[in-house]
Order: sequence, then C-alpha cells, then structure tokens
Amino acid sequence: MRLAELSARSGVSTATIKYYLREGLLHPGRRVTATLAEYDEDHLRRLRLVRALIQVGRVSVQSAREVLAALGDEDLDRNSRLGTAVWALPHGPAPDEEDPATESARRSADELMDRLGWSYGRSGEATAPAYGMLVSAIAALARLGYPCGAGDLEPYARAAERVAVTDLDLVERYGTPEEQVEAAVALTVLYEPVLLSLRRLAEAEESRRRFAGP
Amino acid sequence: MRLAELSARSGVSTATIKYYLREGLLHPGRRVTATLAEYDEDHLRRLRLVRALIQVGRVSVQSAREVLAALGDEDLDRNSRLGTAVWALPHGPAPDEEDPATESARRSADELMDRLGWSYGRSGEATAPAYGMLVSAIAALARLGYPCGAGDLEPYARAAERVAVTDLDLVERYGTPEEQVEAAVALTVLYEPVLLSLRRLAEAEESRRRFAGP
Repeated sequence: MRLAELSARSGVSTATIKYYLREGLLHPGRRVTATLAEYDEDHLRRLRLVRALIQVGRVSVQSAREVLAALGDEDLDRNSRLGTAVWALPHGPAPDEEDPATESARRSADELMDRLGWSYGRSGEATAPAYGMLVSAIAALARLGYPCGAGDLEPYARAAERVAVTDLDLVERYGTPEEQVEAAVALTVLYEPVLLSLRRLAEAEESRRRFAGP
Repeated sequence: MRLAELSARSGVSTATIKYYLREGLLHPGRRVTATLAEYDEDHLRRLRLVRALIQVGRVSVQSAREVLAALGDEDLDRNSRLGTAVWALPHGPAPDEEDPATESARRSADELMDRLGWSYGRSGEATAPAYGMLVSAIAALARLGYPCGAGDLEPYARAAERVAVTDLDLVERYGTPEEQVEAAVALTVLYEPVLLSLRRLAEAEESRRRFAGP
C-alpha cells in the first residue's frame, strides 16, 4: 500500500508517519520509484505499536526506539526479547538510595518474591526497572506509615499473577513470535489504564457493599 | 506537638507545612500564643495523606483540596465520602466524543459491567471519572486493533474485584470512619505503582515459563 493508505488504515497522519520513518521507529517502505514507496501489513502493525507506546504509554521517542530495537533482535528468544522490551519502558523514579526506607522496602520486596517463587530482576542480580518501581512504591508507603509488609502485599501479587496469565493468553492468540512480542509490549502499556480504572470501579462497588448507609 | 515536631515526625519541612496550612490542606493548629500553635495526631495523619496525594499521586493542590473537602463532609456516610473523594482524584483525559471508537467502547464497558453486576457511575447516571477512564482506555485498544471486548476484559475485572476486597480489608484495619476514609484514598493512590510493577514482574515470570529458550 502507499503512504496515503497506510495513513488511512492506521489513523496516523502522513506527516507523523514521515516523522516516525525519519526517527527510525518504522522501517523504510520498499522503494518503487524515486518518490514512491510501498508499505505492507508489517508497517501497519508496527505503526500501531508505536502509537500505543508514544500516545498512550507516554514513552519518549528515544525509549520507543530502544523498545523496538529489543523486539527486532533475532538473536534473542521470545522471552528475552519481551524482557528487554519491557525493560525499556518508563518506570518512574528509581529508588532513593539516600533514604533509609529504601533498604527496608527492598527487604519487603525480596521477602514477597521469595513467598511467590519469583526471581526475575531482583536485587543481587541485574535489577529490573519494575523491581526498582516496586521498591520505590513500598518505600513511599512505609514513609507515610501505611501497611506495606510482604504479607500485606502478597494478595496484590497473587492478583498480579492472575493478570499476567490473562495477558500472556491474549498474547498467544497472535500467530508469529514477532507478533506475539509486539502484542505483549503494546498490551502491557495499553491495559494499565484499564486495570487502574477497573480497580477504582471495583472499590466503589465493594465500598457500597460494606459502608453504604441505609 | 509544636510545628518542629510535626515536621520531624512527618518528614515534611516546616516551610511545606506552612504552605499546606495557607492553602487550606491542613486545618490550623490550636493557638497557644500569638506566634505558637499546637498540633496533634490528626494533623500528622492528614499531613501523610496530603503527601501521598501530592507527591506520589501527582494530584494538584486544587484537586487535593476537593478530595479533603469530601473526606471531611460529615453529612455524608462513609461510602459517599469515599466515592466523592476518589471522584476528585485525577483520571486522565475524558473520552473523545468525536471519535466513533468511544461509542463502541462505552457499549463494551456497559456489557462488562452487566456481566459483573456493577452499577457504580456508568453511563446513563452521573458518570464516574473512573468509568470515563475505562471507556478511554478501551477506545485506545480498539483504535489500535487490540483485543478489548467485554469477554477479553472480564478476567481483568475479576482480578480488580479481588484487589478491591484486599483494599477494603486494609482500610477496615483503621479504627474510626474518618481514618478509614482517609486510608482508602491514600491506599488507592499509593498502591497503583505497586500493582503496575507487580504485574510487570509477574508477566516476566509467566513469559519465562512459556517462552524461555532451552
């Protein structure tokens, strides 16, 4: 398809598509003449992913480029490609190592992961950004005096495990390893606001059940 | 306690506490002399909540004032106070009514809520911001061609229900209705990064289980 059709089918303006091409977020089309290029379904799929990252996930162009580089690395298996891509997503501020709450938060995070049998990216090995995000969030709870021990956190982690099974079931609907890894990254980002809004709605239902007046 | 002790116990600088007092986010201390005021445990607890909202939840001072006004409204029961307070939290952009994806996203959201027996804040009645956030998130998935039917979303909603039960169990550890409503708002905000980071870690574990090479 030509640029105009790629634009119509993706809902992304031709100016934005040209910008993504210049920034290396989209691989060049197949040159037909000096001024015309041909695009295919791979371009369309990649364009959707780029929009998910940049417009919904508020990922910078630089980070998006790192995510995409990881996705395209054919030397890695699916699991490593996915890990590297999610690693490149933004994760908020790193833990504040000057703060005494950080060290005890790290102990709570490690105790939690021991209980769950999780080993990915925790302290000691190469530390995953999502692990740092967890430690920062626990430290904020601790500083403010709110419950944040491994026992308090465990039911949330069990819910996260069920969510992750659903996530990967969605991902496995896609046919090729390439499509699966792309979908995994897009769905990680796009389902975050879904989850947070559903939690607020579920809280409102549960609050009504417990607390509503006569 | 005096201002200096309130600052030491909360970890909030005296300058910031004075700013919160001027902005009406903290009620004035009990005047002892013309230049001295006395603060109590209520001030400390309120100060923690204000920090949770502003520093972790990135809530504006104006929104924080609305959240706190709802919490303090003694004409409302606990459920209504909590609902009004969570209503005042930021929820991202409202659904784009110009976009055809919004109308079908609203139908998916309503079908999902029918399946769950949820009725809080959906279209037709006064629409809750969390419902708008859900519709926007579903519309973004639909525009990009990712799965977002009511059946796709249902497992996420079931996980959100379990999270909400855990949330309200934590809240009920607090003694008075005032403390419970304050804790509910703080924990809604503070546990969001916990949940998102746990999901990413759980995804990494599940991805390794399914996709890791030999």
